[in-house]
Amino acid sequence: MNKQLKLAKRPVGMPDAATWTLEENPIPTPAEGEVLIKQHYISLDPAMRGWMNDVKSYLPPIPIGDVMRAGTIGEVIESNNHPVFKVGDILSGWGGVQQYTATNAKNYYKVDPSLAPLPTYIGTLGMPGMTAYFGILEVGKIKEGETVLVSGAAGAVGSVVGQIAKIKGCKVVGIAGGAEKCQYLIDELGFDAAIDYKNEHVRKSIKAACPEGVDVYFDNVGGEILDAALANIRMHARIVICGAISQYNNKTAIQGPSNYLSLLVNRATMQGMVVLDYGKSYGKAAQDMGQWMLAGKLKSKEDVYTGIENFHATFTRLFTGDKKGKLVLKVLED
Amino acid sequence: MNKQLKLAKRPVGMPDAATWTLEENPIPTPAEGEVLIKQHYISLDPAMRGWMNDVKSYLPPIPIGDVMRAGTIGEVIESNNHPVFKVGDILSGWGGVQQYTATNAKNYYKVDPSLAPLPTYIGTLGMPGMTAYFGILEVGKIKEGETVLVSGAAGAVGSVVGQIAKIKGCKVVGIAGGAEKCQYLIDELGFDAAIDYKNEHVRKSIKAACPEGVDVYFDNVGGEILDAALANIRMHARIVICGAISQYNNKTAIQGPSNYLSLLVNRATMQGMVVLDYGKSYGKAAQDMGQWMLAGKLKSKEDVYTGIENFHATFTRLFTGDKKGKLVLKVLED
Repeated sequence: MNKQLKLAKRPVGMPDAATWTLEENPIPTPAEGEVLIKQHYISLDPAMRGWMNDVKSYLPPIPIGDVMRAGTIGEVIESNNHPVFKVGDILSGWGGVQQYTATNAKNYYKVDPSLAPLPTYIGTLGMPGMTAYFGILEVGKIKEGETVLVSGAAGAVGSVVGQIAKIKGCKVVGIAGGAEKCQYLIDELGFDAAIDYKNEHVRKSIKAACPEGVDVYFDNVGGEILDAALANIRMHARIVICGAISQYNNKTAIQGPSNYLSLLVNRATMQGMVVLDYGKSYGKAAQDMGQWMLAGKLKSKEDVYTGIENFHATFTRLFTGDKKGKLVLKVLED
Repeated sequence: MNKQLKLAKRPVGMPDAATWTLEENPIPTPAEGEVLIKQHYISLDPAMRGWMNDVKSYLPPIPIGDVMRAGTIGEVIESNNHPVFKVGDILSGWGGVQQYTATNAKNYYKVDPSLAPLPTYIGTLGMPGMTAYFGILEVGKIKEGETVLVSGAAGAVGSVVGQIAKIKGCKVVGIAGGAEKCQYLIDELGFDAAIDYKNEHVRKSIKAACPEGVDVYFDNVGGEILDAALANIRMHARIVICGAISQYNNKTAIQGPSNYLSLLVNRATMQGMVVLDYGKSYGKAAQDMGQWMLAGKLKSKEDVYTGIENFHATFTRLFTGDKKGKLVLKVLED
């Protein structure tokens, strides 16, 4: 049987367990030209919260009753004359929160399981890593010697942003929740400084860590931290708007950045980005990041939980921050 | 005697008359290398409100007790061996709210009074016009066929923004207060549509006027109108942050744009600008705009009040919107 998690209702605020229903259905049969994928891991990402809302966005809302959208990695166990993929191939794609997916595998790509653990392919070598890569290089346009500030710095995207900025010769300051994560940023990932937003005055700490101001701020969180960063930007700064996890479960309006006129004073730019736009260049990015990983310059950390039944509890960790690195759920035993 | 308006205190909220004191002092004597300028007109601009606050910005705060900072245009009536300027020259510069200015005239430039009326040199051919020119062309990067939305559209900057966008082949929609101003935008300035923010639902009216979305939004006002614009931007839109007149007299925090995540969804850019950065190119801009004016493609409208004693009442019109075009105060009789 195939356990599938389906969206039961549109949540208001923080989603509760009743937001989804777990169904058991027969394992699907691939149609002509399709493959059947046995999914090993699903990716848990803050963006999933946005896809649940009935608003116009960069992807259509997940319809009520559909399998919850998620990035996945799994193995082809059957092919009904698929033109490209064969039994045994490991594919990354949008398989959703379920154990088996029958698909024409458009937008899926094959990965080599001998080069990296499977969870890494939905983390640093997957969407979060790509988001970091294109966000900091193409949108942030970092240059050697600049000061880079990143929020959500211990997370799947932020940790890669900071490490790439270090590789490119920047000074890097990360914002994360709790002393342990902050220590991790400095000791393990080589950040120059870390700010514990749960226990520090963020605006003052940014000023102390970046006395000449911030050249590039990579924002994953929005809210007060975005305002604190805006208060500390330098002339011609670039702010990359990647996400706003502090606002995703709001029941009231999103908190806009009260300090946005700092953009005027500092002739600065705030730009939004969505990783899906960079599909054509994923190959180059994966090559760069793979080499950095082999050279020990880029570390990848995944926090793997087990059991599709535990989806809600695991998803909640995205917003409480109770996780270490990229959050992944294993939905099938080996 | 020289009537001078000096900053007496830092206002909280909307400045009252006691914010300034009017003094009469002897007409100053130019030092060696200086000129004495008899000021004809001073420029009233929303940015003046910001210069009165004791905060770090793109110009230092006006010190308490100093002459109120303002752009001016006037005639050289005495030269104490000034290396460049002569008696009779008409100079535009930062003369402040006073009738006579003794200065080395650094950052002043000479204008030709036979080509345009003097008030135009502190309007369309002065800072507001330059702001519009560089803001819409260099920051907004408008292209033929795009849809341009501008707020404060009947004002000194907005009216020029819209007209330049029309000259460049864009569809132009203006936002202004009241039916009369809106009619003026369409009938006199050739805008394609106008939205009366005092009597219309701005978000819905933008959607109706720009059904395919806004490519470039030039913002002079901030607040709810900025949010309404953000709700209607198109993919890869550019938002030029030039000012936020709706927020300048706030007693509480500035209202940040609650819809800023529209930047992410639409891969859009919000960029601040200050006209002072473009000094090297003012000549080229003045040439372009002068030619457009001669060709009847760019209209300039000034609303001239008289008497330095009426500064406060005239200044207030900036924020009530009770004015028609660029606000100018004549501080000396001819």
